[in-house]
Amino acid sequence: MRLRKRPWVKEEIMQYTSYTVVNPENHKGVWHKLFQNNNPIYVELGTGRGRFITSHAQNNPEINYIAIEQKQEVLVQAIRKANHLELSNIKFILGNVNRILDFFGQGEISRIYLNFIDPWPKKRHAKRRLTHQRFLDMYKHILNDNGEIHFKTDNELLFEFSLNELSGQKFRLSNISLNLYRDEHNLAQHIQTEYEEKFINQGKPIYRLEAKKES
Amino acid sequence: MRLRKRPWVKEEIMQYTSYTVVNPENHKGVWHKLFQNNNPIYVELGTGRGRFITSHAQNNPEINYIAIEQKQEVLVQAIRKANHLELSNIKFILGNVNRILDFFGQGEISRIYLNFIDPWPKKRHAKRRLTHQRFLDMYKHILNDNGEIHFKTDNELLFEFSLNELSGQKFRLSNISLNLYRDEHNLAQHIQTEYEEKFINQGKPIYRLEAKKES
Repeated sequence: MRLRKRPWVKEEIMQYTSYTVVNPENHKGVWHKLFQNNNPIYVELGTGRGRFITSHAQNNPEINYIAIEQKQEVLVQAIRKANHLELSNIKFILGNVNRILDFFGQGEISRIYLNFIDPWPKKRHAKRRLTHQRFLDMYKHILNDNGEIHFKTDNELLFEFSLNELSGQKFRLSNISLNLYRDEHNLAQHIQTEYEEKFINQGKPIYRLEAKKES
Repeated sequence: MRLRKRPWVKEEIMQYTSYTVVNPENHKGVWHKLFQNNNPIYVELGTGRGRFITSHAQNNPEINYIAIEQKQEVLVQAIRKANHLELSNIKFILGNVNRILDFFGQGEISRIYLNFIDPWPKKRHAKRRLTHQRFLDMYKHILNDNGEIHFKTDNELLFEFSLNELSGQKFRLSNISLNLYRDEHNLAQHIQTEYEEKFINQGKPIYRLEAKKES
């Protein structure tokens, strides 16, 4: 979806000084100081409107969350949600996932969430998919020894691609689902993103897996 | 499918003395003597009417094949195919997959084919699925160090179950496909079983994966 550029949006993002991290590279390796505790850090790559990560942050005060999103028009909505909920365990980065090695130190992250990332369906764009081995190498670097990736998508081809990439890359897969809400109990067990809700209403299956870094 | 018991069928199977192995346990660990060479041995569990394995045997004379099937009414059709093709690199066992540890020695097998095995959809029957960890343990025992499982099914639930079982069991997955014939070139690349052809004609997706034993 293309959103009209609104000049005041970036200004608004910057005004949320307790949520927006202007220079994330300055906190590389020492994010626990910013959070003022040693709780595990979970990162969502491509946060969108932020329902998923703000709900998680609200439900899990013992976890620190960092949301990365490059589109300011949607990021601002995510930050507004956090602000409205008065969350103290979440930070936001306006930036590109390509730069995560600049943002995070080795083994600093306990979990990475990938929710409904861009499938980049054309073969020549495969390298841009966030489950391409190029990115998996980065994730392995920033994840700690028990670190995990939690991945959801509605895109069959992306899921198939991701299964193969992860299997080839020394990740241990678990909780693989080819239709997450086949069991309706999962609607209550899992928090749905804004996109996900739309796909579920269209009757599309949601694919999901967890991948644990192998030592 | 239920076939009427025909008393002369077992008699016919036993008449194919160069194909039917009456006491497979006698060849445990020394199948290469029966084949009179040291070629790799590939086993298909649940061979059905045998199109898949007889085609493979015809195309790959440098591989030895063993087909296991417990229903004599379909096994006889598989043996007739091998006999018609005058294959010298295939043997047939009328028996139950539960007994493979009686049939094969440690590391004796290079590849196991599982094609359209019974999905046993009820949860209480999960232990009977041929990709249950109970069977995977047996496969790991009889497979050699580079041994592989090649698995195809039309059943989404069975495939999801199998992905999870294999991931938990120190197998390295590759060539995972959620719709094998999405790419029509694969129709020529892969040999279809009799069941598979029916499913393809119904427009059902075929799931496939390869799993390599991890040392």
